[in-house]
Amino acid sequence: MTDLTGEMLIGATSVFGDTGTFRARNPRTGEDLEPVYGLGGSTEVRKASALAWDAFATYRETSGERRAAFLDRIAANLEAVAEVLVARVITETGIAEPRVRGELARTANQLRLFGKVLREGSWIGARIEPPLPDREPLPRPDLRQRKIPLGPVAVFGASNFPLAFSVAGGDTASALAAGCPVIVKAHGSHPGTSEIVGRAVQAAVRESGLPEGVFSLLHGSGTHLGTALVADPHVRAVGFTGSRSGGLALAATAAARAVPIPVYAEMSSVNPVFLLPGALSERADALGTAFVASLTTGVGQLCTSPGLVFAFDSPALETFLGSAARSVQNSQAAPMLSPGICSAYAEGVRRYASHADVTEVAAGARDETIAAEGVTHLFTTTASAFLADPALQEEVFGATSLVVRIEDASQLALIVQALEGQLTATVHAAGADLDLARQLLPELELKVGRIVFNGWPTGVDVGQAMVHGGPFPSTYDGRSTSVGTLAIERFLRPVAYQDLPAELRPAGLDDDNELGIFRQVDGQYTR
Amino acid sequence: MTDLTGEMLIGATSVFGDTGTFRARNPRTGEDLEPVYGLGGSTEVRKASALAWDAFATYRETSGERRAAFLDRIAANLEAVAEVLVARVITETGIAEPRVRGELARTANQLRLFGKVLREGSWIGARIEPPLPDREPLPRPDLRQRKIPLGPVAVFGASNFPLAFSVAGGDTASALAAGCPVIVKAHGSHPGTSEIVGRAVQAAVRESGLPEGVFSLLHGSGTHLGTALVADPHVRAVGFTGSRSGGLALAATAAARAVPIPVYAEMSSVNPVFLLPGALSERADALGTAFVASLTTGVGQLCTSPGLVFAFDSPALETFLGSAARSVQNSQAAPMLSPGICSAYAEGVRRYASHADVTEVAAGARDETIAAEGVTHLFTTTASAFLADPALQEEVFGATSLVVRIEDASQLALIVQALEGQLTATVHAAGADLDLARQLLPELELKVGRIVFNGWPTGVDVGQAMVHGGPFPSTYDGRSTSVGTLAIERFLRPVAYQDLPAELRPAGLDDDNELGIFRQVDGQYTR
Repeated sequence: MTDLTGEMLIGATSVFGDTGTFRARNPRTGEDLEPVYGLGGSTEVRKASALAWDAFATYRETSGERRAAFLDRIAANLEAVAEVLVARVITETGIAEPRVRGELARTANQLRLFGKVLREGSWIGARIEPPLPDREPLPRPDLRQRKIPLGPVAVFGASNFPLAFSVAGGDTASALAAGCPVIVKAHGSHPGTSEIVGRAVQAAVRESGLPEGVFSLLHGSGTHLGTALVADPHVRAVGFTGSRSGGLALAATAAARAVPIPVYAEMSSVNPVFLLPGALSERADALGTAFVASLTTGVGQLCTSPGLVFAFDSPALETFLGSAARSVQNSQAAPMLSPGICSAYAEGVRRYASHADVTEVAAGARDETIAAEGVTHLFTTTASAFLADPALQEEVFGATSLVVRIEDASQLALIVQALEGQLTATVHAAGADLDLARQLLPELELKVGRIVFNGWPTGVDVGQAMVHGGPFPSTYDGRSTSVGTLAIERFLRPVAYQDLPAELRPAGLDDDNELGIFRQVDGQYTR
Repeated sequence: MTDLTGEMLIGATSVFGDTGTFRARNPRTGEDLEPVYGLGGSTEVRKASALAWDAFATYRETSGERRAAFLDRIAANLEAVAEVLVARVITETGIAEPRVRGELARTANQLRLFGKVLREGSWIGARIEPPLPDREPLPRPDLRQRKIPLGPVAVFGASNFPLAFSVAGGDTASALAAGCPVIVKAHGSHPGTSEIVGRAVQAAVRESGLPEGVFSLLHGSGTHLGTALVADPHVRAVGFTGSRSGGLALAATAAARAVPIPVYAEMSSVNPVFLLPGALSERADALGTAFVASLTTGVGQLCTSPGLVFAFDSPALETFLGSAARSVQNSQAAPMLSPGICSAYAEGVRRYASHADVTEVAAGARDETIAAEGVTHLFTTTASAFLADPALQEEVFGATSLVVRIEDASQLALIVQALEGQLTATVHAAGADLDLARQLLPELELKVGRIVFNGWPTGVDVGQAMVHGGPFPSTYDGRSTSVGTLAIERFLRPVAYQDLPAELRPAGLDDDNELGIFRQVDGQYTR
């Protein structure tokens, strides 16, 4: 099961793509890895989407319990190949082993968490309005509402979470939970990881007695296979984590279809951090250390990496910068996820370094033995320079951050106004800062999906209350989250049934509430 | 308060537009009505949107109770001007008085219903995950989630519900309920109605002590003022009910913005009705009568008018057609909403009448004294003709329907597959039809927002379980409803707060649940 073949998985079959080949590269050593992978094209998209559409008819009618058991099975199958999988992830992505093991646990837990959501049952969104035959001027009919799945979902694997946001990651788990078959376009930087995970899912489909089209895994270029996938009439929604240009291209393709479809693209975020004066004077040194720990997590390649820090000019800010600079200098170079990401990062660092109003504070240790070398950098600039140049809030994907020195409260207000939509904003505040924090909070709310107090934006907890989303351009659709259980709602829509005979009522809409789920009945929530 | 001035309402002020003038026309008599209305342009859009943005900061922080009282006040203000308002609606739209009075009651009830939603409180979407400091491998932070309003909403009034889906209609009620200021572009066919209602809302804003920018009412062309409104950076969502071309134009404008925004456009639907064999043989005659009663409601100008009927060829179908033909012949001509709608309807009828494979069954009585005369028409065609020509499922907005004779079950399946997205599908079934209905139901679910059994699609109940939405092209965003309480969700998005100090927690996210609302705590719903 874990001998890599270089094939795509189309339903129950394996197919070696015939429109080109590629190999993964070890970002630490720069060596190309075995095996050779075949690239697919529109033929494979059509096959996978036809199978997915066929499977949808059956899959969407499965019970929540059955889908939960399927998700549990995927988790167990992943855990059964943990050793081979972890080794391959490390080889393909350069991520350190403890993080890979943590990510595998997170991925399995995430699948099981959606199983819990399915078993709890309120995802059905059941609303019942009993008939009122005597209502004036018109009788009220019997109306029952539930949510149904949209249809097959195209999932684009992310490079930076080769497990948790790739083949069996959050988008896949939430779409499968919703009752949607999934067609994954594997990320080109970890095809072996994708194949191992894909085979675990493929096996779970078979072992669960589900139709084969519930899952397919394709390799191909974004412009060809990716576009064909989003344009395919059987595909009804898209989950994507990646660059802004990639997300926007998919959104344009989706909007140009005869029938447009939703695109849930998580695109870019610089995750501003605000160090309020009280916090800074209380704990500047500790904040500097903790900030760099967050910045360097995952070699800075997390969607929530703190790329911008704002603080009022003060001696405490100098203490913070001194502490952060020492931590940066002590940081070790590490492999970035891929050569492409590494060169884009180098370009971003050069952009800061060559900017007339930006000063380098510190750089981390280099390690030229690493092919895709990621080195930490810390820069500063002034609020007026930041406000004058919108390019200074463009994401530099990697362990680089820009500290912006603010002179007064009016600059702070202008900066918050000027910020683009973000996944997160972080506020460090002491007791003395509460008034300022209270002013800041409603402004930040309008810009972000999550507000973190006295912590760091990295470390996205996969739970019931998480929001990993935010206004454009952090995502293409700020009304949703891609992490946490609310993500299931992205792939559902409401349907109402008027005077449906009892024999035909879908599960959850019966009079007796056999599923025992929370429902809204005549406007009141009840079980 | 009810002396019409021809002005727009921008916050607390009244402004006569200076980019042109127009007058409403009485569709029954063809006469132009007083007063002259001034058209606004981008200047007025900018003023209204700046006021709306200012107001948003305050309005979004108002309690559910306060917004509920505001909606109640709008309803009371409308009822206070009922006589003048009803008279003006009749003059401007030709709608018969009982329907206008019913629509006014529905509009007031709809506002009060959203008040109930606000007081009930679960719209907040509160989710709380208490911290788990001892969790391994990482502690869980304190995470709390709620939904916040998107920002100012542009509402485009509909022609066919001059009260219930216009200035203070469903889109406005749900957006105001969500905490979003509203800027209405009045529909050009009922400016006087819009002014009366607009002044009632404007007064309610003042009487409720809310910032003036919570509501503005503009007159202008769709291509100029409408486009400027959707393109305005302060506008964060769009509610629209109208034509497919109009909705698509707004969606294109919204997608082309620097920051795209959601467009909730309810566009077109032919609302297929399936007469299953058992039902037809049991009650063909009664079905024919009831069908035409639904078809002629509102002179066929309802979004849910039954424009297509499918039935197996049989003697019972002939009985149905005979009964329907008699009802059509007995139907009286009535004024359509506007000269434009009337001429588009005439063109649609001509399209059927001149189609080689379409036969006219019956036409209603004419009344040439009516300027915008709407006459009922009934046509038939065959399933093969229907399947051969996609134009036969294009909406003819008015009291015209096409009965499609089906030969066998395979044709029925092809027809269901060929249907575009619809607001509704209706099934008439007797006991003997249950198996066929069971097969049909999942197919219809994929195409529509509401399924009606043994009734008619017109008569959309404004309640908790209604869905008035559906897959494209019936709406631009099939994940929502524009009627019923779920509509509030269109204008909200989730935000998570991590480790927020207790002093800063928004209402509904406190430990003690002072609001007493249903919340999800640690994955369980509780109050």
